[in-house]
Amino acid sequence: MIKQIEVVLPAYKRGFHLITKHIESMLDSLPETGMLNIFLRHTSAGICINENADPSVRFDFETVFNKLVPENDPDYTHVFEGDDDLPAHIKSSLSSVSINIPIQNHRLALGIWQGIYLGEFRNNGGKRSILCTIYQ
Amino acid sequence: MIKQIEVVLPAYKRGFHLITKHIESMLDSLPETGMLNIFLRHTSAGICINENADPSVRFDFETVFNKLVPENDPDYTHVFEGDDDLPAHIKSSLSSVSINIPIQNHRLALGIWQGIYLGEFRNNGGKRSILCTIYQ
Amino acid sequence: MIKQIEVVLPAYKRGFHLITKHIESMLDSLPETGMLNIFLRHTSAGICINENADPSVRFDFETVFNKLVPENDPDYTHVFEGDDDLPAHIKSSLSSVSINIPIQNHRLALGIWQGIYLGEFRNNGGKRSILCTIYQ
Repeated sequence: MIKQIEVVLPAYKRGFHLITKHIESMLDSLPETGMLNIFLRHTSAGICINENADPSVRFDFETVFNKLVPENDPDYTHVFEGDDDLPAHIKSSLSSVSINIPIQNHRLALGIWQGIYLGEFRNNGGKRSILCTIYQ
Repeated sequence: MIKQIEVVLPAYKRGFHLITKHIESMLDSLPETGMLNIFLRHTSAGICINENADPSVRFDFETVFNKLVPENDPDYTHVFEGDDDLPAHIKSSLSSVSINIPIQNHRLALGIWQGIYLGEFRNNGGKRSILCTIYQ
Repeated sequence: MIKQIEVVLPAYKRGFHLITKHIESMLDSLPETGMLNIFLRHTSAGICINENADPSVRFDFETVFNKLVPENDPDYTHVFEGDDDLPAHIKSSLSSVSINIPIQNHRLALGIWQGIYLGEFRNNGGKRSILCTIYQ
């Protein structure tokens, strides 16, 4: 009753990206009723659910997250992997790496305006691995 | 083994509100052991779990979230839906739209001081839809 | 098909702590495929997943969370339980109290660099109770 699917996202540039269609395309037929867990196996990127229409929202997410956790704070001690590294870790935990989305009528039960975001917080994060688990 | 219940919350004013009793009243008998997922189908409100006793905590949540994501930042580009709109999207992802609460002995296994909060981040958000999924 | 295990963490000092091994040691054999939910029954501590190697990341988490939600803000109204109390509540909701981790090949499907953090946000938080739920 549990099915797991590995999804490897292509390298995205730093910022927030809509990945709903990519995720959906990797899932075969969904059960009539169930739950999807999306688990991102990284500590410097994040997943969240937000507005799926206007790209300006994603643009402003990057702006605001940079203000919340600015780079080059002299109080940081974990600095040897680049100025973007420690802030990326914090941003990952301010968003999340694990989200549950209910399945209803064989579809993800997202609201009309909801999409799945990948937050890429590194300057060169590379490919990102996600484990999708469907249970019914 | 999976049951889904749609809950429509009445329009709340901007701020944080305790909705534990409202959610519980919509769920019939809970299984002896299981899991409840609460999924909010919106991008400008949020759900989190926090202190259920003193209303001053909810009051201060509103204060702190407004400081974390202030309105009228000239760097925002998504501004055409009102000053409260872009900050509401960010606040939604800083809290969450999807929370899992275990079920134990036919009851939500919340800690003594834990309650379910709705964070209403719009000035006039209107009714909010939640999909509750119970699995055992 | 659902198993629940109560875990009582020893009192940790304020800050972020790696609790992966403690959690794993409390879980007997894991199913081949499934899901683990970790639910923290408190409102002034949090759980998140982040870097499991360099302790400087956990040190900087404490620094950044203190900057995000400073103590002694004169706008706070919930002040009678100590300067650390209201900020602890907010930090709990900025991280989370409920996380799902998929189980694959009888092991937690964490990424190579991922570990489970307890964020202890009180100066003297004492023991913390976690309810682990495994479903397959």
